[in-house]
Amino acid sequence: MRQTFVSQILNSIADAGRDLLDRGNGKSRSHSMEGLCRDLLTQRGEASGMALAREIVGLWYSLNEEERLSFFRFLQNEEGVNQAKLDKAISAYSKDKTPENLQNLTQAVEAPRQELMRRINFAPGGTAALVDMRKFIVSRLREFPDLSEVDRDLKHLLVSWFNRGFLEVRQINWRTPAVVLEKLIEYEAVHEIEGWEDLRRRLEDDRRCFAFFHPALPDEPLIFVEVALVKGLASAVQPLLDLQADRLDPDRADTAIFYSISNCQEGLKGISFGNFLIKQVVAELSVELPNLKHFSTLSPIPGFMKWLNSVNGKAAKLSAGKVTKVKKLLSEKNWWQNDEVVEQVKDPLEHLVAHYLLNEKRNDRPLDPVSRFHLGNGARLERINWLGDTSRNGLSQSAGLLVNYYYSLKNIEKNHEAYVNEKKVVASSSVQALAKSV
Amino acid sequence: MRQTFVSQILNSIADAGRDLLDRGNGKSRSHSMEGLCRDLLTQRGEASGMALAREIVGLWYSLNEEERLSFFRFLQNEEGVNQAKLDKAISAYSKDKTPENLQNLTQAVEAPRQELMRRINFAPGGTAALVDMRKFIVSRLREFPDLSEVDRDLKHLLVSWFNRGFLEVRQINWRTPAVVLEKLIEYEAVHEIEGWEDLRRRLEDDRRCFAFFHPALPDEPLIFVEVALVKGLASAVQPLLDLQADRLDPDRADTAIFYSISNCQEGLKGISFGNFLIKQVVAELSVELPNLKHFSTLSPIPGFMKWLNSVNGKAAKLSAGKVTKVKKLLSEKNWWQNDEVVEQVKDPLEHLVAHYLLNEKRNDRPLDPVSRFHLGNGARLERINWLGDTSRNGLSQSAGLLVNYYYSLKNIEKNHEAYVNEKKVVASSSVQALAKSV
Amino acid sequence: MRQTFVSQILNSIADAGRDLLDRGNGKSRSHSMEGLCRDLLTQRGEASGMALAREIVGLWYSLNEEERLSFFRFLQNEEGVNQAKLDKAISAYSKDKTPENLQNLTQAVEAPRQELMRRINFAPGGTAALVDMRKFIVSRLREFPDLSEVDRDLKHLLVSWFNRGFLEVRQINWRTPAVVLEKLIEYEAVHEIEGWEDLRRRLEDDRRCFAFFHPALPDEPLIFVEVALVKGLASAVQPLLDLQADRLDPDRADTAIFYSISNCQEGLKGISFGNFLIKQVVAELSVELPNLKHFSTLSPIPGFMKWLNSVNGKAAKLSAGKVTKVKKLLSEKNWWQNDEVVEQVKDPLEHLVAHYLLNEKRNDRPLDPVSRFHLGNGARLERINWLGDTSRNGLSQSAGLLVNYYYSLKNIEKNHEAYVNEKKVVASSSVQALAKSV
Amino acid sequence: MRQTFVSQILNSIADAGRDLLDRGNGKSRSHSMEGLCRDLLTQRGEASGMALAREIVGLWYSLNEEERLSFFRFLQNEEGVNQAKLDKAISAYSKDKTPENLQNLTQAVEAPRQELMRRINFAPGGTAALVDMRKFIVSRLREFPDLSEVDRDLKHLLVSWFNRGFLEVRQINWRTPAVVLEKLIEYEAVHEIEGWEDLRRRLEDDRRCFAFFHPALPDEPLIFVEVALVKGLASAVQPLLDLQADRLDPDRADTAIFYSISNCQEGLKGISFGNFLIKQVVAELSVELPNLKHFSTLSPIPGFMKWLNSVNGKAAKLSAGKVTKVKKLLSEKNWWQNDEVVEQVKDPLEHLVAHYLLNEKRNDRPLDPVSRFHLGNGARLERINWLGDTSRNGLSQSAGLLVNYYYSLKNIEKNHEAYVNEKKVVASSSVQALAKSV
Repeated sequence: MRQTFVSQILNSIADAGRDLLDRGNGKSRSHSMEGLCRDLLTQRGEASGMALAREIVGLWYSLNEEERLSFFRFLQNEEGVNQAKLDKAISAYSKDKTPENLQNLTQAVEAPRQELMRRINFAPGGTAALVDMRKFIVSRLREFPDLSEVDRDLKHLLVSWFNRGFLEVRQINWRTPAVVLEKLIEYEAVHEIEGWEDLRRRLEDDRRCFAFFHPALPDEPLIFVEVALVKGLASAVQPLLDLQADRLDPDRADTAIFYSISNCQEGLKGISFGNFLIKQVVAELSVELPNLKHFSTLSPIPGFMKWLNSVNGKAAKLSAGKVTKVKKLLSEKNWWQNDEVVEQVKDPLEHLVAHYLLNEKRNDRPLDPVSRFHLGNGARLERINWLGDTSRNGLSQSAGLLVNYYYSLKNIEKNHEAYVNEKKVVASSSVQALAKSV
Repeated sequence: MRQTFVSQILNSIADAGRDLLDRGNGKSRSHSMEGLCRDLLTQRGEASGMALAREIVGLWYSLNEEERLSFFRFLQNEEGVNQAKLDKAISAYSKDKTPENLQNLTQAVEAPRQELMRRINFAPGGTAALVDMRKFIVSRLREFPDLSEVDRDLKHLLVSWFNRGFLEVRQINWRTPAVVLEKLIEYEAVHEIEGWEDLRRRLEDDRRCFAFFHPALPDEPLIFVEVALVKGLASAVQPLLDLQADRLDPDRADTAIFYSISNCQEGLKGISFGNFLIKQVVAELSVELPNLKHFSTLSPIPGFMKWLNSVNGKAAKLSAGKVTKVKKLLSEKNWWQNDEVVEQVKDPLEHLVAHYLLNEKRNDRPLDPVSRFHLGNGARLERINWLGDTSRNGLSQSAGLLVNYYYSLKNIEKNHEAYVNEKKVVASSSVQALAKSV
Repeated sequence: MRQTFVSQILNSIADAGRDLLDRGNGKSRSHSMEGLCRDLLTQRGEASGMALAREIVGLWYSLNEEERLSFFRFLQNEEGVNQAKLDKAISAYSKDKTPENLQNLTQAVEAPRQELMRRINFAPGGTAALVDMRKFIVSRLREFPDLSEVDRDLKHLLVSWFNRGFLEVRQINWRTPAVVLEKLIEYEAVHEIEGWEDLRRRLEDDRRCFAFFHPALPDEPLIFVEVALVKGLASAVQPLLDLQADRLDPDRADTAIFYSISNCQEGLKGISFGNFLIKQVVAELSVELPNLKHFSTLSPIPGFMKWLNSVNGKAAKLSAGKVTKVKKLLSEKNWWQNDEVVEQVKDPLEHLVAHYLLNEKRNDRPLDPVSRFHLGNGARLERINWLGDTSRNGLSQSAGLLVNYYYSLKNIEKNHEAYVNEKKVVASSSVQALAKSV
Repeated sequence: MRQTFVSQILNSIADAGRDLLDRGNGKSRSHSMEGLCRDLLTQRGEASGMALAREIVGLWYSLNEEERLSFFRFLQNEEGVNQAKLDKAISAYSKDKTPENLQNLTQAVEAPRQELMRRINFAPGGTAALVDMRKFIVSRLREFPDLSEVDRDLKHLLVSWFNRGFLEVRQINWRTPAVVLEKLIEYEAVHEIEGWEDLRRRLEDDRRCFAFFHPALPDEPLIFVEVALVKGLASAVQPLLDLQADRLDPDRADTAIFYSISNCQEGLKGISFGNFLIKQVVAELSVELPNLKHFSTLSPIPGFMKWLNSVNGKAAKLSAGKVTKVKKLLSEKNWWQNDEVVEQVKDPLEHLVAHYLLNEKRNDRPLDPVSRFHLGNGARLERINWLGDTSRNGLSQSAGLLVNYYYSLKNIEKNHEAYVNEKKVVASSSVQALAKSV
């Protein structure tokens, strides 16, 4: 309540002044996005920057799709780099490479919309609005590629502001405010959370959940990871999600299974937090539960079936005919519950998955995005799990198979360097063997 | 405690890996600033960025002056703009002004040390270390002007990170942790706080204190303002600081006097918070105490005596002889307690101060920095107060005179625009009259 | 986590000592409730009171029904008043009424189980365990009336500990931890909360919810009230609960409707918080929303149908035949959706309800418990609402009728005294008129 | 602020009602303590109990000494046990020992002022006011022994309310609000804290401080203990307090020295928290610093010199002449800095102290109150330290000697039982030896 009153007064300070001015000028004050933005970038912004920013933020949320696009076109066309100024700075610098000329060049190459974005951030809720703007632009970029410069500027700012040093890791549990918990239900991207009962199971004593937050978005997780405390390396996800399954005393667990990692903010697309989060959580859990000896994911292989379906002819060590047959069997309904079919497809599928993960690459990096992520973090491809995820999604993405990526604390950096320098997919011998023979 | 354990594990993850690698490479790991910084900027930084950043932060505080300078020279010389890359980008862009070429130019013009600074910020305490680095560089810049580019890059980053939207206003009172309170004693720049009793007086019921904080520096005020709740416009500061003076029931006050504003962080020099803070505090106080009708400062005139001493010959409407006589009288010990002297100097001094504040300018702006600040914020020069500050400092700076700058909520923006557009010093008629005649 | 470790060490301090002692004594330590309680009441309790209390608390939750009863019989029979000591104290006091003899009598009349209960409270969770013990005993008291003395002692302690001065009022909203929110769903006693969506509706911007908490039970509401912010006196509850209904800007509401009040802790039965809570909430809302002009309940009449069904013959101004007819009509399925039936029963029912509330009493107090509560608090019986609650429960309790009890701030105490001294049911003239004629 | 507004409204609800009533009654409302208390105990208290309690609390603080005494006489004389009612209850119970008659007796024996005190506690600040009332009464009890019954009732209530289960242990450090820290300076009873610098030293990294708080007195420590983290058993207190002394890395400490324990609230005199606090702190420190192996006090011997001065003739194994000589030497100024004197008194003094602590008793318990406290808690008298406290106070109380009481976790309860059952002073062999021979 108090904050509302304080805001009203701050606005009225600015409004009073601007009303007076407008009356004096004989002109009416602009309340359009463009008008407000121009005010905010000029001297008026110095005196009443926060009030202007506040108005822009409020207005943003009331715009319809078309008005939003028109706002971005304004940013693109009118608040971009000043060509004449840039040419002049280049020319001066080319003649004389003084620090001053370099400094002028640096300034000239920055589009004014960047300063505008920084000033929009003055307002309470400004950061959230900017993230929302980026969410919008990201969703329309394919359609309007000319907006990519605005996107680049916005992303540049957000990368700087969402620096790891400003993020806070918080444990999420049943004591967390509902306003945050409902975001988990909304944002879970790997294994859908089906309501509050399901969520509650994932926050019980033998589960852990951690998320990164930014101080300017206190109720919005940026990324979260769900962990199951178990004995031995878990090979299937359905038992972990089962509401009826036995609970384990966390002090008796020896393994932490990271079974779901979800990025939450589409407006922060391309800004990576996962690497930091996983290591932070490993450290948090090590302190809390000294008995934990193993840290591993239980991960999807989102690109597998897509790749398999794109194969024409032979794949790995399988003949074209064999491949076709496997694909045909997989198209049968509930094939995985049919023992005969299973017997025929299990070996070839495991072989194909191992091959896909170890050998199928683009630009020297694994095709599979989840694999790229964990291997890049220094994990080891540990095990392929038959029927690890028999949900509809699991079956359609990867024929029900799941993978463990294993985080061995003392090998993380070694693995990472092998991956980066030698383009090596670090994998256990069993996975390597699977890839070699059917 | 917990956080210490977690940090140790995070470090040991990174260390374990790097030890192994180093052994494998047959080379020993670098623990020098330069070596760590190079690691942090390369692929090693991707895997163990936080641990490297942590080590750099720790090391920074252990460096002596010479080593710090040497570190900045490394940043200046080895982590500056890549000349060849920049030339190429300019050349490409000059030929073909595509968005891609502009983007390449933008990247080429940014020195790698900026990315390095962003990565140092990964560490807990990273922001504090960067602010401390800037504090060091600011203090040596006059001596080593060649470091100004590093300073510029660091300031650029800090301006972006200390955006108003990330700051939090907090009321400071006797319930505030001691670790913050002792900073007030340390940082007060206008009217020195002489220990805890003095501080306590300034935090009593008829006083208010507000400060801005940044989430990454939770115990460090960035700027704070001290306010006295009084009846009528206060004309002297000693009664406000007097430990024995009567306390006023805050509900009976009609005026809030901002009697001291102090910037706290030398590392944030040139990044302005005062404008925002004053307006925020006006709004906070208006909500808390609806009976407050007036908001005004009681401010020093830090440049007055310096200016007066620089005058040779006549000043304002005073003859050279008169000026000389005034200066001579002011050089007498305790002149202000001598009625005869006071009678002779009061009128000429008030005239001179009014003249100094209204007419003495550089680049069309008032000479006096405090005046520039408040007029730029939209305040009005309201009143000149004879013997408003008889402390040693007050007498030597401005012959004991103080000024009220009045914040009239509905005129703030009008005043600001008059100041910016018409270079006008908005002043009350009485001050204007003082400047016109002796 | 930390607290768990600390607890383990505290226990191990006590355990170590007790193990040693037991070994020394050649006897094995008691882990039965009775044995632990005896230890706790003797010198052993002085040294390791907290550990013993902790063990008792843990053990309590593991007891089955029979063991619990046996524990209470132990309290009843072995930790009751010491008859010999009391007789002696009475005899001494009767002879000589000195302060010392009075003091001895005071002590003798207190059963040792009271001190035992105070010591059980040493343990973390001790208060919760004692409230749980009372919950158990309250549920079995009818069956085992001989335990009423234990109940009385327990209640005596809880009354003292749950003194208003120790309670904290907290607003419940969507930022409240889920662990508290799920308790609302569980405890709502008037209009059932059907899951999280329903709960969320009740915590939106045009709703308020407040509860009392005790510091020793931080996650357990003791009582909570649900409030709807509306325009005009609400006459029906279904629109207030409707998920689809329009939301009102709370600044435009003029009336706060208290539509549900639920006591949460059966273990605190007979300890009254409602009176305090309602007034506190009226004050909180008045500060937050100065536009609120009216505070009223929308309340059930839980005893009405029970009373009506007990009537044989005439009731109020209705003949026996008329009464019988009304009862018959009300037994038809969905009578309230049948216009013809409604036309026949509306007038007589409103008359009967008004009569029931105004005139049907026991011991000079209204029969209806909700009526007793609000009238005792100083409210006025304001209006009877036809079909105010058409839920199954509302229809079966009170034929769908609801009542507004109006809290007029300036009449609360006058009404209360009229109720207490003159046994008067303060009611609006319209309700009085309804009671007088059909 | 908000809370102030809410309180005003709560008061005005009650006031409005009472004004109306008073006008109706033609009598004016009482604002005397007695009048308010009577109102609070009758039906008026039911409706506006909180407002009445609030008024009583406010009034209490404005009373002068004489008015306070008069208030307590009112409590003593007019709100004591109802003699007639008690006689009747005794008589009924003597005739027929039914549970009902026992219950009536229990009620009759409780003075109405107890209920009054419980109701005063309804008000915000009520608990603090009751503790303040007790502080007053405790300070005047010797003078007015007739008030001891009121004191007993008040203490009875406070014992129940300040039950260990309601207390919260908090670590006090430099992050603690100043409002609490200044209380430490005020309340330190063993080694005076000489201002904020001294306090700060005691809260540095190699020191710990813990206190108990009650939720109703959030800024008031009830008892606090100061701990130094050191290597080996500390033998003198001045080095621990020395501002210049080297700081120790807490991870390198093996011993926690409890060098000061202070009760803070005179109003809670006779209610013991120390036993709980010490064990809690031992557990907290064990978790935080696993390297700690020893927990010991460094304690004063407050009664030693008093006892020695009371000795006429021989003491322990010393002849009367020897004793007289020691006393004479100790009366010399700065005797402890005179090597010759020290040589003569050291052995006899250590012998006398050992004897005093081991053998001088009253009612089978050690004469020395600090010794009684720690031995009762299960500590062992470990070592006598020559010139452990050379402050003026230390020299006058105990000739500069200090004692270590050692808390051996596994022997605490064994020691306690030996002390309680066998009246045994558990002491190290070296202290026993000292007591035996000179």
